[in-house]
Order: sequence, then C-alpha cells, then structure tokens
Amino acid sequence: MKFASYKSGRDGQLHIVSRNLKRAFRITDIAPSLRECLDNWETLLPDLQERHQRINAAGQVDNAKRFHTPSCSAPLPRATQWLDGSAYVNHVELARKARGVPMPDSFWTDPLMYQGGSDNLLGPCDPITGNPDWGVDFEAELAIITDDVPIGCSAEEAHQHIMLVMLCNDLSLRNLIPEELGKGFGFVQSKPPSSFGPVAVTPDELGHYWQEGKLSLPMQVYFNDQPFGHPDCAVDMTFNFHELIAHAAKTRPLGRGTIIGSGTVSNKDKSTGSCCLVEQRMLEIIASGQPQTRYLQPGDKVRIEITTPDGQPLFGAIEQTFTGSH
Amino acid sequence: MKFASYKSGRDGQLHIVSRNLKRAFRITDIAPSLRECLDNWETLLPDLQERHQRINAAGQVDNAKRFHTPSCSAPLPRATQWLDGSAYVNHVELARKARGVPMPDSFWTDPLMYQGGSDNLLGPCDPITGNPDWGVDFEAELAIITDDVPIGCSAEEAHQHIMLVMLCNDLSLRNLIPEELGKGFGFVQSKPPSSFGPVAVTPDELGHYWQEGKLSLPMQVYFNDQPFGHPDCAVDMTFNFHELIAHAAKTRPLGRGTIIGSGTVSNKDKSTGSCCLVEQRMLEIIASGQPQTRYLQPGDKVRIEITTPDGQPLFGAIEQTFTGSH
Repeated sequence: MKFASYKSGRDGQLHIVSRNLKRAFRITDIAPSLRECLDNWETLLPDLQERHQRINAAGQVDNAKRFHTPSCSAPLPRATQWLDGSAYVNHVELARKARGVPMPDSFWTDPLMYQGGSDNLLGPCDPITGNPDWGVDFEAELAIITDDVPIGCSAEEAHQHIMLVMLCNDLSLRNLIPEELGKGFGFVQSKPPSSFGPVAVTPDELGHYWQEGKLSLPMQVYFNDQPFGHPDCAVDMTFNFHELIAHAAKTRPLGRGTIIGSGTVSNKDKSTGSCCLVEQRMLEIIASGQPQTRYLQPGDKVRIEITTPDGQPLFGAIEQTFTGSH
Repeated sequence: MKFASYKSGRDGQLHIVSRNLKRAFRITDIAPSLRECLDNWETLLPDLQERHQRINAAGQVDNAKRFHTPSCSAPLPRATQWLDGSAYVNHVELARKARGVPMPDSFWTDPLMYQGGSDNLLGPCDPITGNPDWGVDFEAELAIITDDVPIGCSAEEAHQHIMLVMLCNDLSLRNLIPEELGKGFGFVQSKPPSSFGPVAVTPDELGHYWQEGKLSLPMQVYFNDQPFGHPDCAVDMTFNFHELIAHAAKTRPLGRGTIIGSGTVSNKDKSTGSCCLVEQRMLEIIASGQPQTRYLQPGDKVRIEITTPDGQPLFGAIEQTFTGSH
C-alpha cells in the first residue's frame, strides 16, 4: 500500500495512492490522517487493503483522482519522533574530513544517530528557505516509520516493526554545524525541518529490492536538472534499518510513528556521485585543494527519487527549490 | 487554567483541574485530548474559561471528581517536539566538571540546548525503569509548552508564545553520557523518556511569581522522603524562557505543542541543595575527592514540586520510584 497526506490542517488528509502513482483516493472515511491510520492500523487493515485493491484495479483517471505531488505534505507532517542515523559511514568520514574532525574507528561498529525536530516536517515540493550564509545543503536519504518498538529490541527482531518506507531530504546548515556540534549537545539550530517524499509505502511494495532492512536500488539525485548522484542504497550501508532500530531502542521504547532516517546515501565508488553538496565539496578539496561547488543559492533546485530499473516510480519524487530567507 | 491528561490511549483524556488541585472535570466534550485542545485553542477558549470558572466555584467534591495524580499521564503524553535548554549554567559547569570536560566561556552567553525524544513521555507517578549500571539520575526542571513560533522570533517577542507551564523530571543515564556525547551528535541512548508533572498551567495562574520568563519560587526536591534541594527557579537562571524560545527558533519555526525545558534548576548558593544526583556527587568530589551519593538504586524515590510560600500547590507533584530494569 502507498499513502500520501494532502496538505490540510496540522496532520494532513489521508489518501491512498496507486502503485504507479497515477491515482489517489481520499480515504478520510477510514482515518482522517496518516497518524490516526497508524494509531488504529490493526483495526483498519481490512478496509485499507480493500481500498488498495480498488485503486490499483481502477481504470480511467479523472482529474479529481489524479495523484498530485505538490498537494502533498510530508506523510506525517508532524511526527512524535525523528531520529536520523548515519548508516553510510563513508559519508560520515568525508563530512568529517570537510570539517577537519577525525573519525573514530568505533563509528564502523556503533551507529551514529541524532535526534531531530519533528514538529514541522516539509512536503516534497515545499520551498527550502534559509539564509544562504548558513551553508544550506540537501541530503538524500531513505527513512522508515516504525511501529511501537519495545526497549531492548534486537536487530533480529526489528524487521517486524517497520511499517512504512519513505524518501527524505535531510537539510543541514553546514556553516552552523561546527560551532553547534562543538558545544557537545548535538543539532538544534543547524538542522532545519527535513522534507519527505510524497508517499510512504509498506515494505511489501518494494518487492525483492527490499531485503534485510536495505533497499537495493540507486538513489537518484538531480541538482539544477543535472544528474548529481546515483549511489545504490544497499551498497556500503554499514548499518541496515534493523540495526538502526535496535540502536534507537537500546535504552527506551519507540512510539509508533517514529521516523528513522538512514543518513545520506553514499557509495565508496565515487563514479556514482553524491547525495549532498558537502561530499562533492570534500572530493573537490581532496582533488584540487579547493571546493568548486557552492552550498544552495536562491533558485537552486534539487530532485530526489528512486525508481525500479525499468523506470517504475516507487516513492514519487522530492522536488524542492531554495528560495533564500523568507 | 490548569489542565491534566488522564491515562487513556496515546494522547490521554483532557481534564480541567481546580486551582487548588482538589477537583478535576473531564472535558472531552470540548476536546478529547490536550493536543486537540491546543490545536483549536482560540476557538475553544470561551468554553474552557467557562469550565474553569465552574470548577473553581464548585463546592463539595465527590470521589468521581477528586483530582487523582496517579491517573495522570504527562499533559502531552506524546508531543511533536521536546527541546531541553541548560539555562542554569552553574549546573552545566558542575556536570561538566564531573565528567572532566571544561566549559567554554561562550556557555554564559549562548544557550546550550538538546533535542530530546517526545514520543513516549512519562506521567508524574510512572515508574522510572532502566539498568542501574547506566547511572540513572533525575533532574528537576521547569518546562513550557509553546504556541506556533515563527522562525527568527526574538526574545522580546517570545513571551506571547508561552501557552502552558509544567514541571519536568528529565532523566539522564549518566554512565552512558560521556561516550555518547563523545560521538558528537548529542543524546539518543543516554536520555530515556522524561516525565512531567500532573498539570500544565497557563502563565496567569502563576501570578506575580511568573515574571520575564522566570518563576520566582523554589523547586522542592525530595530524595527518599528527605529534602534534597530547594533552589529558587528565578535565581541564577542565566537564560529565561524567552531567550530559550528565541534560541530554538533561530533557524526554524516551532510547532504549537513544542515543549521547552529549563534544564536542571541550580543556584550558586549551595545551601539550597541540588535538583539532580550528579551535582551532589560533584560537590562531594570537590569536598572530599570521592562521591558518596549513588545514582538511582531500585526502590529509590524522588518527589518534585513547587508550591507558593503558604503551601498552595501550583503544578502538583512528580513522585516516581526507580524500579530497575523491566
């Protein structure tokens, strides 16, 4: 099943979307919002599945039922938890090199994760705002929405707690990060709201591409309409989503609706490009001593999506333009 | 007005509570939960005020209407944001000394704040669980619930965005903190869910004790029924709540229902005691080279409350027992 939240109020309006992302039916008669749908998932499942079959069998699409990405908020426009891992340790190593901070060896065995703000998540086409001097950067990631996860859940048990999978653009204010992380308490000012792809999908929609908490497909990133990166999400993912869940739940339970991100997708094979600007800048510094790529400037556009090898859409696309300060 | 959420489902059941905390009326006919009450605050205000007047005028209390703290969840059992400041820099200095980390001078002018988990907040009488080896500590704090706060809100403008004030017990796993903070991304495993006092109150309920985003009353902390600390919340509060809001909103808006904590209340005058165990341990180390106070052991009890000088309750009490691991 694929779900979208159309912009409406604080929690959005629940829609079910066809597999090919052509059709969307409002299903607020089943649950007003995705939050309430998750809250009552077990009870609602038969109705959701019936609607899922109906939308995928439907024929002609009239305009009222055509899926419209710009109408979407984040699937959960306000969530109760957003935790972002750094599963692609290769990216962490490059990002730290860029800020001149060495990386401890333990980062290859103990996941890095931060707690982010989840009160105001952005939709897939919402503008990216902010002061260009802050060094605004995008980061293309995968993210999951979990079920209730008991404290101490092991990685082996964690697979059963993944309810939905999404695309994410985790925005970062690169020029504010060194000073804020230097204070030792993590990110507050240097991580503005993240944005999410238009649809959240159940893992079964990903077929054999989804295995062992990893997705074996390239993350497709375009910067100002040019290909920028296409690393495979399953390659060089040091920690799969099961391990990220176990890390997050080590000392506390996770509430249903928790979003966990993978961190910026990154392959060691640099011919696959990058999923964020800082990594590209670091590669330029290593190659020539100087970065050529700038952080986001007003008018810059980023597009993030994942399709199957034959071009079938999975999550829809994030397409955002940086507009500078409000 | 004073509000409580009785345990029920994921968001609790909204009650209005009399000023003296003797009576509670269920007001789910106005809004099912505090979250929905906040979402529609402007529309519901006349009804809430009418009920507020009625409960404070009410005479006899039958059992059905007697306010019952153990029935309470946190006022917002799952929130969309929990940010905890460290407004009492004196505490920060002592806590860092205890972990052997120096404190930069900038901490006196730039607030320290971390993003915490808000998916599973504890009620005032919920047990504290966890492995005693983790070094479980309590921290008595004040916390506010904000309105929507625009990005870039100044401290001067921030006062109008405080909707409710609460007590908080921000739990910490002291023995996990040094290694996790050493990773540089803040707290995930070393901060389990925080607990909150039974009622959230509008600032006008605090009368002249609430001024300039500070509360001029002692935080009363009892450890195993013995007085442990009574520092004044307005003394040595380097950053008031207005400044904490401005810090949090510098690069992003805050959604209505955001909880911001003050950090552990702490006065330089050490005759006022402490609001957490680590501070007491640090004072013992400074005095004798060795800590005598242990972190929480199964059966240990903590009680946190604030009353007026003549003993009138304001927020009710947090009363928790540490039970060890589940």
